[in-house]
Amino acid sequence: MTRTAHYTGQHTITVDTAERVPPRTGQVRIDVAYTGICGTDLHILHGAMDHRVQLPAVIGHEMSGRIAEVGDDVTGWAPGDPVTVMPLAWCGECPACEAGHNHICHRLNFIGIDSSGSMQQSWTVPADILVRLPEDLPLEQAALIEPTAVAVHDVRRSRLTAGESAVVIGAGPVGLLIGKVAQATGAKVTVLELDPHRRAVAAQLGLPALDPQTTDVAAQIQQRTGGAGADVVFEVSGSAAGVRLATELLAVRGRLVVVAIHPKAREIDLHRVFWRELEIVGVRVYQREDYEAAVRLVHAGDVPADRLISRIVPLEHVADAFAALETGGDVKVLIDCGGNA
Amino acid sequence: MTRTAHYTGQHTITVDTAERVPPRTGQVRIDVAYTGICGTDLHILHGAMDHRVQLPAVIGHEMSGRIAEVGDDVTGWAPGDPVTVMPLAWCGECPACEAGHNHICHRLNFIGIDSSGSMQQSWTVPADILVRLPEDLPLEQAALIEPTAVAVHDVRRSRLTAGESAVVIGAGPVGLLIGKVAQATGAKVTVLELDPHRRAVAAQLGLPALDPQTTDVAAQIQQRTGGAGADVVFEVSGSAAGVRLATELLAVRGRLVVVAIHPKAREIDLHRVFWRELEIVGVRVYQREDYEAAVRLVHAGDVPADRLISRIVPLEHVADAFAALETGGDVKVLIDCGGNA
Repeated sequence: MTRTAHYTGQHTITVDTAERVPPRTGQVRIDVAYTGICGTDLHILHGAMDHRVQLPAVIGHEMSGRIAEVGDDVTGWAPGDPVTVMPLAWCGECPACEAGHNHICHRLNFIGIDSSGSMQQSWTVPADILVRLPEDLPLEQAALIEPTAVAVHDVRRSRLTAGESAVVIGAGPVGLLIGKVAQATGAKVTVLELDPHRRAVAAQLGLPALDPQTTDVAAQIQQRTGGAGADVVFEVSGSAAGVRLATELLAVRGRLVVVAIHPKAREIDLHRVFWRELEIVGVRVYQREDYEAAVRLVHAGDVPADRLISRIVPLEHVADAFAALETGGDVKVLIDCGGNA
Repeated sequence: MTRTAHYTGQHTITVDTAERVPPRTGQVRIDVAYTGICGTDLHILHGAMDHRVQLPAVIGHEMSGRIAEVGDDVTGWAPGDPVTVMPLAWCGECPACEAGHNHICHRLNFIGIDSSGSMQQSWTVPADILVRLPEDLPLEQAALIEPTAVAVHDVRRSRLTAGESAVVIGAGPVGLLIGKVAQATGAKVTVLELDPHRRAVAAQLGLPALDPQTTDVAAQIQQRTGGAGADVVFEVSGSAAGVRLATELLAVRGRLVVVAIHPKAREIDLHRVFWRELEIVGVRVYQREDYEAAVRLVHAGDVPADRLISRIVPLEHVADAFAALETGGDVKVLIDCGGNA
């Protein structure tokens, strides 16, 4: 038997006992060590994604663990191997898959939303979505590989290069990770964030942070870039104000990466887009190369995953962990799923 | 003495006699054969650009002609050479110029708006902005090199490749040129246009044209692309509806090229931009390689410049030419500046 957190609708998440799922052909069963709570998990708990989740749902997709059992026809993996999972399953047949963009498959199954996730002791998944972890990487840190892969994908799509200047609007966990990945690329990074606590966290991580409400950000960025403007702006706030500021800050040929999910259409200054030949770039999840780069960056300490973890909560207290996140003082909260024993 | 059209403000353009300007060091004097009237010239006549033009202004920037006189220190050019002009002068010192993007110089002088243009018999310009024309290219057609270079730049920035599908929203002269350049790239092109006359012109040029008011365009493009959507959409209508439709039509990783100048901020469906990893690309004027490609395309007949010219009007009747354009039946109107004698 195993312990499993279930989202049962109506803002409720409970922990129950369930049967372990033995791996079928091509699958492995993982003892889950840690599962991080993502903003999407909060949205699910708030009922905002009830059209996608099937109740009762096991959510969670930022995880680390060790292989417990290996199914038939699985090669290259053995019990005890430390792993994380790239939680995507694609159809392989739609136009997006055929064009080689299977991470944006028209019928993408995002595991942990559209099917069962990792907020449980024991998790059975296809072996082909495993990503190998270095033996000496602490599994707590490895639970941050998934959001780091998001950041790597976003920075890669921006075509940011060493010596360029980048602005990150919004210093939540993804904003901070983008800032660190951008710094690892060799860019000069400035973070904009309204919340003083988040600004302090950014500064502790070596990311200079400005308050856009009390600073003339456009003038500051002009000054920091010798009058050019920012080469890349990552919009991670999800706000109309963030989008408006982004096009204002960009240099000629600058790129605006739309990281946050904007539920509403946003007004964009297309005259500025024309005048400076700006680009606006959509980004969604990641590809395997992003995961592999994320493993390297966390392992090397370029992304200080340990310093982003503000709390580790046992699986039995998962509801408390979600409640604590609502208060806003945390950066990344992990659920200890028990598989690190 | 020479004849020159002057925009004198208040919707007025008149033809006067002026002194020929002898070429100084590094300059040439051109006998102007033809000058096309661009949408921007119409905007100028309407007073919409009075903040940029100095009255009385010689406008016009789509031209062809022959060198009449060569100044000191000009090498490689001789009287009689057929030429067109890339009407850009940059500072060479601003951050955009230093980054190699001098066509988007922070202090760009667009010749024919910010300084004297080609709607005159005799025009004196720096030799370094000359573009050589093939001896056997009719000068009427060569007057369309400039708008063709716009289209080449826009298609190049879209990264459109052979076999991809492109949609052009708006079938004015620039939309038609983009359609033909996209076809020359090997793309499957569909044009969307509200005006039946413009749709007929597009069809005569071999560009299939749909009416977005009576056609379910999204369904049509889905069908024409095997369910994928368009790889590239060129928004040349300048309308909010065009922008809205563009993101709806695009395939995964599709590119929206914002060709039209949108004086107002436009609402953009950033959720769609995220969900399909779309890109929105700003485009402005051209670079020398675009001009050179435009000469090749017009010379080869891939861009049928002769079939886009609907009227040629002598310089003395320039005011009538502008008036005729207002009625909407023309595609491209040329002013015969007299230098083709």
